[in-house]
Amino acid sequence: MEYPSLADPAYREAVVDLLGVLAYGELTAFIRMATDSDLAPSLRLKAEMAGLAAAELRQFEQLSERMREMGVDPDRAMEPFVVPFTAYHERTRPRGWLEGLVKAYVGEGIAKDFYGEMAAYVDPQTREVMNLALGDIGEAEFIVSVVRDALKTDPRASGRLALWGRRLLGEALSQAQAVAVTRDALATFLVGGGADLAAVGEMFTRLTDRHTERMTRLGLHA
Amino acid sequence: MEYPSLADPAYREAVVDLLGVLAYGELTAFIRMATDSDLAPSLRLKAEMAGLAAAELRQFEQLSERMREMGVDPDRAMEPFVVPFTAYHERTRPRGWLEGLVKAYVGEGIAKDFYGEMAAYVDPQTREVMNLALGDIGEAEFIVSVVRDALKTDPRASGRLALWGRRLLGEALSQAQAVAVTRDALATFLVGGGADLAAVGEMFTRLTDRHTERMTRLGLHA
Repeated sequence: MEYPSLADPAYREAVVDLLGVLAYGELTAFIRMATDSDLAPSLRLKAEMAGLAAAELRQFEQLSERMREMGVDPDRAMEPFVVPFTAYHERTRPRGWLEGLVKAYVGEGIAKDFYGEMAAYVDPQTREVMNLALGDIGEAEFIVSVVRDALKTDPRASGRLALWGRRLLGEALSQAQAVAVTRDALATFLVGGGADLAAVGEMFTRLTDRHTERMTRLGLHA
Repeated sequence: MEYPSLADPAYREAVVDLLGVLAYGELTAFIRMATDSDLAPSLRLKAEMAGLAAAELRQFEQLSERMREMGVDPDRAMEPFVVPFTAYHERTRPRGWLEGLVKAYVGEGIAKDFYGEMAAYVDPQTREVMNLALGDIGEAEFIVSVVRDALKTDPRASGRLALWGRRLLGEALSQAQAVAVTRDALATFLVGGGADLAAVGEMFTRLTDRHTERMTRLGLHA
C-alpha cells in the first residue's frame, strides 16, 4: 500500500487535524477524569482514578512534543476541536462516581478505537506519533472490577448504566460527525482519500462491536 | 540534636499523621489544579496548569510508595484529613482563572513551607520521605508571569487578588488549627516534643513572611 505524503498540503492538513483532535481529546480526558476522581467513594479509588488521568496527560505531553518536532503547533492544531469536545463533555456530565467510571472506560475506548482505525491510513511517521497516544492504558483496568462489584450490590444500576453507555456512544458519534462537517481536509481524507464509503461503514461496525465488547466486560448490556 | 525514634508509638503516630496530611494535601491539590485548568483562557495555559497538577500527583505517588515501605497504609493515614481539606477547598473555591492560579501558587507555597518547617523536627528517615514531596515544583513558575501580565491589563484585579491571598492564608491557618485540635499526637509533637510554644510562634512568623514574599513575587500586596 502506498501512503500519502506529508508534502501534500491537503494531506498534511488532515494529519494536523487528526493529531490535534487526538491531543485535545487526551487533555480534556485528563481534566474530566481528574475532576471525576473527586467523586470516588474511597481514597484508594480516588488515587486510582487520578493515576488514570495522569496517564492521559503523559500521552498528551508526548504527543505535543512530537507535534512540535513535526513543525506543528499543538495549540493551533487543537483549537478547532475545543467546541465539539466541550459539547461532548457538557452533554455527558456524569451524575455520580459510577457514571464517571463508565465514561472513562467506554468514552476513552471509543476514542482510541477510532484513532486506531485512522492510524491504518496515515503515513508511517504520523502513525508512529499517533501510536504514542494509543498505547493501552493499563491504568483503566481497575474500572472493570469496580463496576462489576457495584452491580452486584446494586443490580438496579445495571439498566441505568447500560443506557448511559449507549448515550456515550451516541454523543461520541454525533460529535465526530460535527467535526467531519467542519473539517474538510479530515473528512476528505477519511471518505475520499484513504478510505471509501463502504470502508467507513465497516469501520463504524467495528467500532460498535468493540463498544459492545467493552460494555460486556463491565457486565453491562450494550 | 537527638531525633525522636519511630519505635516510640506516640512519635510514630505523629509521623503517620504528618505523612498522611502531606499526601492528602497533594492528592487534593492535584484534583483542584486539574479542575481549575479547565478555566484557563488558552490551550497553552490549560496544558501548563495540567502539567503542574500532574507534578503534584507524581509527588503524591512517590510519597504513598514510601509510606507503604515504612509499613504505613496511605489511605488510613490520609483519612483524618479528608474533612479539613474538603472544608478548605470548599471555602476557597476560585471564582475564575486568576484566583485559581493565585491559589495554586500561594496555597501550595504555604503548605510546603509548613511541612518544610516540620521536617526539621523529624527523624532523618522520615525527613527524607517528606523531602520527596517538598521538592520545588518548577512547573509553578509560569504562574508568576501570567499573574503579573494580567495585572498590567486589569489593574483593578490587584486589590481583589490581594484580598484573595489573605483569605487563602487565613483559611489555611484555620484548617491547620482544626487539624491540631483533633490530632493529639501531632499537636503534642509540634508543641510539646520537638518544638516549644515560642518556637511555634517564630515558625508562624516565618510562614507569614514567606507568604508575603510570594505575594510580592506575584505583584500583589500581602
